Amino acid sequence: MDDSLDLIASSKSFGGWHTRYRHRAHTVGCDMVFAIYLPPQATTAPVPVLYWLSGLTCSDENFMHKAGAQRLAAELGIAIVAPDTSPRGDEVPGDPDGDWDFGHGAGFYLNATEAPWATHYRMHDYVVRELPALVEAHFPVTAARAISGHSMGGHGALVCALRNPGRYVSVSAFSPICAPSMCPWGQKAFSRYLGEDRQRWAQWDASALIATATERLPLLVDQGSEDPFLSEQLHPQTLVAAAEAADYPLTLRIQPGYDHSYFFIASFIDAHLHHHARAFAG
Amino acid sequence: MDDSLDLIASSKSFGGWHTRYRHRAHTVGCDMVFAIYLPPQATTAPVPVLYWLSGLTCSDENFMHKAGAQRLAAELGIAIVAPDTSPRGDEVPGDPDGDWDFGHGAGFYLNATEAPWATHYRMHDYVVRELPALVEAHFPVTAARAISGHSMGGHGALVCALRNPGRYVSVSAFSPICAPSMCPWGQKAFSRYLGEDRQRWAQWDASALIATATERLPLLVDQGSEDPFLSEQLHPQTLVAAAEAADYPLTLRIQPGYDHSYFFIASFIDAHLHHHARAFAG
Repeated sequence: MDDSLDLIASSKSFGGWHTRYRHRAHTVGCDMVFAIYLPPQATTAPVPVLYWLSGLTCSDENFMHKAGAQRLAAELGIAIVAPDTSPRGDEVPGDPDGDWDFGHGAGFYLNATEAPWATHYRMHDYVVRELPALVEAHFPVTAARAISGHSMGGHGALVCALRNPGRYVSVSAFSPICAPSMCPWGQKAFSRYLGEDRQRWAQWDASALIATATERLPLLVDQGSEDPFLSEQLHPQTLVAAAEAADYPLTLRIQPGYDHSYFFIASFIDAHLHHHARAFAG
Repeated sequence: MDDSLDLIASSKSFGGWHTRYRHRAHTVGCDMVFAIYLPPQATTAPVPVLYWLSGLTCSDENFMHKAGAQRLAAELGIAIVAPDTSPRGDEVPGDPDGDWDFGHGAGFYLNATEAPWATHYRMHDYVVRELPALVEAHFPVTAARAISGHSMGGHGALVCALRNPGRYVSVSAFSPICAPSMCPWGQKAFSRYLGEDRQRWAQWDASALIATATERLPLLVDQGSEDPFLSEQLHPQTLVAAAEAADYPLTLRIQPGYDHSYFFIASFIDAHLHHHARAFAG
């Protein structure tokens, strides 16, 4: 297998390096672009990695440009890897109606089972297996992994951690879609990617998965009180109820006045980096 | 005169507020959009203002999204105002060839004298007079002003300060076009906006203006050593020579390995905020 990386951008950042690479991704059957931030510590010793999963419509760039995470990551010695939010390219089918909440930019970090999506939409395997294997083979990083994300990606981070005990040391989320089986974004995506069988949906829904979790990673969730998607799409109270029923250690912080934007993420990213740094320190 | 403001976006950020407004700008004869960040301190007492002038192709958004300045501005109690980089709209002529380095997004923060540019391209008067008057009338800010910027806007910040003694307490720049009369970007812009008379160019060229400066504001300039525009467009050594000849207090820091991007700006914005905060503290 060709696991070469093509460097497509490089900028020094807080003494470390922000770079972007294109590579042939086997799990999703197309070329993929990801970004990695390596802190200055990586020049002398391998560093742990935080995987960041972005939300609907985003690429590898949004978080790296807008979250302001590099400053503290450079201080704490944490690498950050940001994949794209879906497979892309002419050969990858997108939303039949051209909508932004399904298909390109909206892979929901699951493995699709239904035609025509199942061929390429295997983002779960990509972000949990293929991308970390590639990163750990090519860069000065350890196998200590944390995962976080925003909105669709916040939910993706929860599902990646809940489905793969032992794979991550830490998990957090901003404004996650907490119960996709119950909201319009999730129902649209799941019914197409997974079909109409709701038993199958539960395997990709964090609020369902938490009931049977065998590992208890302290979970930090930040949610803005003025998020315009809060009541219809995000349903944090469903996750809270599921966590309480399962005795899962969830800290949900409702941040008064904040919305769904990267201004919100930037305001609280430092707390999440410290959350993951504590887990890396073990 | 109608000096009303239309709010077009609002997000809480680090306990303060990022907002964007559209207004009718009389100096440039068109609608203009600007962004303002108000730190949490502004809810109890007026705060000083840092004006940020962006570079070619930018709008009010680039700095606010990518520089990560709000974190420390919220701590130091500094408001930040980011205007657009030119007049815009169907009634505003742009580059005849559709290039990105002249016209829309490339106003060079001067007052044009030549037709057809002189009607709208009066960005100097807009950023030095009209916009501060508007900001000081509508928001809880003091009349203490600092100014900074990047590339075309870094040069704009120098010119605004050098041409208007007493108006700013502090000035700094990232990767400024230090001697526009000597570089392709500047020569293209000046020959169109100002005509062919190079005596007139000198009134808008920081490396010329510094020779006759009557005020000595400590000037901090950061420049990346790997900036792809460094040798052809930026000419920091010309500014250094002019400052030395005029005994002007310039600190130029060449930052090894950094480029022209916002990854560079974000890496050093805190030092600039501290530079301005010291001047605000008097």
